[in-house]
Amino acid sequence: MPSQPPRGFPEAEFRARCEAAQRKMADRGLGALLLTTEPEVRYFTGYLTQFWQSPTRPWFLIIPKSGKPVAVIPTIGAECMGRTWIEDIRTWASPQPNDEGVSLLAETLRELLGEAGRLGLPMGPETHLRMPLNDFAALKAALPGIRFEDSGGLLSSLRMVKSESEIAKITHVCGLVSGVFEQLPEIISSGMTEAEIFRSFKRACLASGVDDVSYLVGGAGPGGYGDIISPPSERAVSAGDVLILDTGALYDGYFCDFDRNYAFERADDAVRNAYRVAYEATEAGLEAAKPGATCRDLFQAMQGVLAKAAPPELGAGGEVGRLGHGLGMQLTEWPSNTAWDETELKPGMVLTLEPGYAFAPGKVMVHEENLVIRETGPQLLTRRAPSELPIIR
Amino acid sequence: MPSQPPRGFPEAEFRARCEAAQRKMADRGLGALLLTTEPEVRYFTGYLTQFWQSPTRPWFLIIPKSGKPVAVIPTIGAECMGRTWIEDIRTWASPQPNDEGVSLLAETLRELLGEAGRLGLPMGPETHLRMPLNDFAALKAALPGIRFEDSGGLLSSLRMVKSESEIAKITHVCGLVSGVFEQLPEIISSGMTEAEIFRSFKRACLASGVDDVSYLVGGAGPGGYGDIISPPSERAVSAGDVLILDTGALYDGYFCDFDRNYAFERADDAVRNAYRVAYEATEAGLEAAKPGATCRDLFQAMQGVLAKAAPPELGAGGEVGRLGHGLGMQLTEWPSNTAWDETELKPGMVLTLEPGYAFAPGKVMVHEENLVIRETGPQLLTRRAPSELPIIR
Repeated sequence: MPSQPPRGFPEAEFRARCEAAQRKMADRGLGALLLTTEPEVRYFTGYLTQFWQSPTRPWFLIIPKSGKPVAVIPTIGAECMGRTWIEDIRTWASPQPNDEGVSLLAETLRELLGEAGRLGLPMGPETHLRMPLNDFAALKAALPGIRFEDSGGLLSSLRMVKSESEIAKITHVCGLVSGVFEQLPEIISSGMTEAEIFRSFKRACLASGVDDVSYLVGGAGPGGYGDIISPPSERAVSAGDVLILDTGALYDGYFCDFDRNYAFERADDAVRNAYRVAYEATEAGLEAAKPGATCRDLFQAMQGVLAKAAPPELGAGGEVGRLGHGLGMQLTEWPSNTAWDETELKPGMVLTLEPGYAFAPGKVMVHEENLVIRETGPQLLTRRAPSELPIIR
Repeated sequence: MPSQPPRGFPEAEFRARCEAAQRKMADRGLGALLLTTEPEVRYFTGYLTQFWQSPTRPWFLIIPKSGKPVAVIPTIGAECMGRTWIEDIRTWASPQPNDEGVSLLAETLRELLGEAGRLGLPMGPETHLRMPLNDFAALKAALPGIRFEDSGGLLSSLRMVKSESEIAKITHVCGLVSGVFEQLPEIISSGMTEAEIFRSFKRACLASGVDDVSYLVGGAGPGGYGDIISPPSERAVSAGDVLILDTGALYDGYFCDFDRNYAFERADDAVRNAYRVAYEATEAGLEAAKPGATCRDLFQAMQGVLAKAAPPELGAGGEVGRLGHGLGMQLTEWPSNTAWDETELKPGMVLTLEPGYAFAPGKVMVHEENLVIRETGPQLLTRRAPSELPIIR
């Protein structure tokens, strides 16, 4: 097991994140920021728990104009939040559906913002509000003088560029899972069901040292697979099948997100060719992944390769809607490698390259690698997939 | 490995769920229901994918006044949704942040509701809207004649009572994980770190046949633990430590949610006594878990035992805010075993009993079992914890 990077972050990192947000808030005239989702709260506090899987309790974090964030959370989280750098932790005994933190939150916001003020919330793409709509309406009604507005790309612009500590965690999990994919031909074989293959893969990942295999999708089919987001079936794979596994495994709350393809015993020319096309598209993406280029450039570099090979009647590539995306505390983050995303690549951005296309009716081929943008170009975090479709015999 | 219940559900079950919702909608005069979260969409469609972990794309399901649900989803989900009983599947190429399905959704709602109508959405406790607030505002602006209102407890009242097929899935995963907990003393030992223990537990669960160990929290400490929602530390456990593991593992999209406690090598009287108190509180809960009783009755039965033992200066029990909850497609569901929840227990309800209390400063003891309410009383789905704190030697 390679030595693992330390868990958590030094307090200085949270302070820097918080102050960067506060500078952006000042630019926009926002008096405070209200956050409700797991990655938003964790980014500023380090508060890491799977307890978010329970939908019962909302959690609130307020970034004031200056100073440390203020947590307004259920009592059950007080001890765990108390171990972070946050000092001002206000709690209510939850669940309490007739006042699920709303009055405590309103009181806290009034204290931090005054009776009038501008409160930013994430309202844009890839965000949501994690509290009941009725409670949100009650909060607004309790704060008639306060303007609730979109904090716009404030958070995404911060989170898109990763620190070296964040990159180290993603690098670590990418390395562990690369090793598991390399061992996989010794672990799986024809005759196993998709469900058995998925379980074997997850066990091997855990044995290698990842914390969790939160995300694993894929599938197998004769000569290729048709769909890359399904859970495994109870169908046994057999000679001629092509398998894809696409996984988001975690180390200390940071994801890898990449896939690998395998054929069982034999592979026909069509699928071997499709594999090479996707491999070459990834190469073209790597070539383009330099500071100053945009996500659109990445898209076009990869799409240029796919479009030459993709049967036009099947959509000319890009069936998944984009050819990769940001990666970090979430399986997918801004930006998107698409024709419309003009985000400029900056050192520290962690991205996936994910070229995919339909090479025959009902058959797609998708590759994926993870990288970080450096001053000098891309640094691969995953160990590159083999250049030819591997065959499990 | 015990034989597993079939995956998925017969179409008749989805039809029955849909028609039951439509009867309630008719009672309330709702012309349609708009759903945006994973369990809500899955309940009516059977659409099961981990792809929801990506926050990029919203997914919409509309339950019309009559007939099958209508899906308005990203193209990437069309194939997988096409394998469900849903026929009317409308897609847009996502991501597309300048119109992330909003105009397609508005058009579909206009078609189903007319220019004026009443649209229900879950807005109450334990719900949220999984789409950006800006998009929600745009949707409302596009449908000026349509009234968006709270669908109230419509969904929770349906989902709280499980079908036999649902109960079979929960029973299966509870049985598998009960077996893993029983084997655990042979798998873990002093000297292992918490992180190693967590990974060993997850691997054993996967080997036993669960699909995923989505949720695993807990911790260990000398003479007891202080917090039950944290991720594992890199601290090695040693003689005198008490460990709790609390897990939500999955089979075919349905959760178990229970815990077990273990001491390493030795246990002092205080923690052995606290264990017995929590065990007796669970017994009192089981005694009370009969059709016609309420969640409050369950709470009071358990709390009565805890209150006698709990040092009053430490809160007299109930630190987690409730003593159990509903269980199914989510780790926690309505209802809650609290002093205020007067939900009447009905046959088919699947619940956890989760008595816990602080028995010393910074030390809590929590037990948890899963059961289904039957005409004749409770049927345990987990194999009962030992009546005395088990000691791993």
